[in-house]
Amino acid sequence: MTEQRGRLSRRGFLGGIGAVGAGAAGVAAVDAAAAHPAAAPSSTVAGPLGAAGGGADVTSAAARVDFHGPHQAGIDTPSQDRLAFAAFDVVTDDAEELRRVLTEWSQAAVAMTRGVRVPGDSVTPALPPADTGEAVGLPASALTVTVGFGPDLFDHRFGLAAKRPSRLAPLPALPGDELQPQRTGGDLAIQACSHDPQVAFHAIRNLARIGSGVVALRWTQLGFGRTSSTTRAQATPRNLMGFKDGTRNIKAEDTDLMADHVWVGDDEPQAWMHGGSYLVARRIRMLIESWDRAVLQEQETVIGRHKASGAPLAASDEFDELPLDAKGADGQPVVPVDAHVRLASPQANGGLQILRRGFSYTDGIDEGGLLDAGLFFISFQRDPEHFITLQRRLGTHDALNEYIKHVGSGVWAVPPGLPDDTRTWADHLFA
Amino acid sequence: MTEQRGRLSRRGFLGGIGAVGAGAAGVAAVDAAAAHPAAAPSSTVAGPLGAAGGGADVTSAAARVDFHGPHQAGIDTPSQDRLAFAAFDVVTDDAEELRRVLTEWSQAAVAMTRGVRVPGDSVTPALPPADTGEAVGLPASALTVTVGFGPDLFDHRFGLAAKRPSRLAPLPALPGDELQPQRTGGDLAIQACSHDPQVAFHAIRNLARIGSGVVALRWTQLGFGRTSSTTRAQATPRNLMGFKDGTRNIKAEDTDLMADHVWVGDDEPQAWMHGGSYLVARRIRMLIESWDRAVLQEQETVIGRHKASGAPLAASDEFDELPLDAKGADGQPVVPVDAHVRLASPQANGGLQILRRGFSYTDGIDEGGLLDAGLFFISFQRDPEHFITLQRRLGTHDALNEYIKHVGSGVWAVPPGLPDDTRTWADHLFA
Repeated sequence: MTEQRGRLSRRGFLGGIGAVGAGAAGVAAVDAAAAHPAAAPSSTVAGPLGAAGGGADVTSAAARVDFHGPHQAGIDTPSQDRLAFAAFDVVTDDAEELRRVLTEWSQAAVAMTRGVRVPGDSVTPALPPADTGEAVGLPASALTVTVGFGPDLFDHRFGLAAKRPSRLAPLPALPGDELQPQRTGGDLAIQACSHDPQVAFHAIRNLARIGSGVVALRWTQLGFGRTSSTTRAQATPRNLMGFKDGTRNIKAEDTDLMADHVWVGDDEPQAWMHGGSYLVARRIRMLIESWDRAVLQEQETVIGRHKASGAPLAASDEFDELPLDAKGADGQPVVPVDAHVRLASPQANGGLQILRRGFSYTDGIDEGGLLDAGLFFISFQRDPEHFITLQRRLGTHDALNEYIKHVGSGVWAVPPGLPDDTRTWADHLFA
Repeated sequence: MTEQRGRLSRRGFLGGIGAVGAGAAGVAAVDAAAAHPAAAPSSTVAGPLGAAGGGADVTSAAARVDFHGPHQAGIDTPSQDRLAFAAFDVVTDDAEELRRVLTEWSQAAVAMTRGVRVPGDSVTPALPPADTGEAVGLPASALTVTVGFGPDLFDHRFGLAAKRPSRLAPLPALPGDELQPQRTGGDLAIQACSHDPQVAFHAIRNLARIGSGVVALRWTQLGFGRTSSTTRAQATPRNLMGFKDGTRNIKAEDTDLMADHVWVGDDEPQAWMHGGSYLVARRIRMLIESWDRAVLQEQETVIGRHKASGAPLAASDEFDELPLDAKGADGQPVVPVDAHVRLASPQANGGLQILRRGFSYTDGIDEGGLLDAGLFFISFQRDPEHFITLQRRLGTHDALNEYIKHVGSGVWAVPPGLPDDTRTWADHLFA
């Protein structure tokens, strides 16, 4: 009941039911409180997605994803269509101020994921409205807001050195890195995912506003199309190379795989991280114009899959096993030794798997007139070393390296979920 | 039938019905060939939109908008949710090359708006695929691709001086301009609008690829949320100031207003422009952080409307007439003399009206850590002088100027629509 009242209050905004409220009724009519995957089959959260990479259906547009649960939402939640990501630096040494902002951030995140306004006064003429307003009238749109803590948060500034998660350290230099400092690192990260980009942007903007004077935006990234499926109900989307991406991604239904590869377990000395994860982000620019000049056979041998069907080379169905041992008439492997799918496969990496949750991006053109576009890679894993192992191999040997470069990067410890409104993100660090 | 076959061929891609094809079936089931507003009530094109600024419903996600008609699609088409805009320069002096690219561009635009692949070979292993592939499996998503010709296209290079539309000239310097050369002008413009940003980006990318060596991208802009309604069936969306935007916009149903204010009439000496229009684009950055610190009363008096309801000050309903003559107890106008809605109103501008079709944008942060976000303003009018008149007044007197700056700009002549596949965009200039 609380959620329903709250939701109506954002739609109605100050109690007036105007044109926007009425217009949204068609969506509200099919709305149903959506459960977090931890509590219900994840396919009910966002409903069946009709099309890869876009086209949210009515159910998913209206869906609410529960903020609370053993894990933060936005990891095993069915991947929404749009992303707004932000990295922040803390610009004060005052731990109390940081604590206050983290408290208000999680209270605001709870409200926004319910589809209601940021808590506070939005009606007194002599005060700035507590909510910036651009999401008024929009449904919750399956918004999730996921927080991460960067390695430097545990330095001397806030007395948090003893709280540092055991696996949290800056990523080492990796083969092929061409990182830009202005797209790398950050004390805090927010991943806001939604089927509506205006809802996702609204979340980032309002958190930045709440944190003003305590945290400052370091860098941001919009993603316009998901490049991963995280449940079996979702069709595999295509990335900007035109290939299906994430066919072999871990799916939320695979709870054993999630436990083995994604969630931090009880072996972590920092008990506050149990049920959490680590988020790695990489801004991977694609050299679009070079790729588009490559012939189809080159594209397919670089990836190791057929472009049309997504099937592995020498196979016929997208979900066929990779024929890594198969050889052609010439005695050579049908999936080349430097093909991307081979090098990224669990078979080639001692069984390692990560949960990918990436998005396509474009940010205009560069100084040379070339499209600045590619993949904003996000992965969740219980140990960043798993990503490092994979990227060391890929960065060294992957045939795809001719067509991509890693230009942005970051790693953050992702705390577990909160059980209810009595706890906030600050409690992980300051309780 | 042709369209239906074509649509299936992009979804199936090379005849294989894989997971994406099956996943899209739920959308395809409700698909219906959508008519251009010129041929049918425009509300049937994209279906009733349930929510302002986002949330495409199933009908609109699947909708096809007819490329052909007396006017180009993308003007009186119900505003889609997402934008990809690109300005190009022609980098050759060879008129035949320009003619070829414009021919291939319109052929590709016809295909993409039908939801099928760019014409050409996408299956021969030894050739680069004709279509880059990232929209395979996605429905047409109401894509429109609208072309504009910039003033410099009619200089000495291509022998087109005698074809120059009578009203086409670079915009003059306007009060408050803070234009960045890298976001201004261009020989050609493409406005791609869709409910799916991946479909809109795909259109720009493939046109850039087709034009490689003849045209070069000059600048691009993504818009993530519409800020205008162009039919009565659409709820008024909110812009990033949190206010409803475009309440008094011309609607496509107002065919007399469209004829009077938007479409180039028979008085234009260049007959090839009859039924066309002029597109003005302005990248209007909002000083988000300053706006968010302003108190509610300041925000409302600057705009001249209530934030929650969208009603004019001293009125109660969004669609109430502006009470421009009403005075308060203090004898002052209730809608201040420098309020945005007053200065932009037809009453204050001798009856001038323009068709707005703008989008919200964000492009990360600037060097100072402030959000680079605002409104990508697009308007269509039968004479760019109408925009110039409005902006001279607004740029000089508008109270909103404290919170915005115009940083990008361009004007293009928008030719009329093409009747069928026997004609192309090149014919406007070279027939």
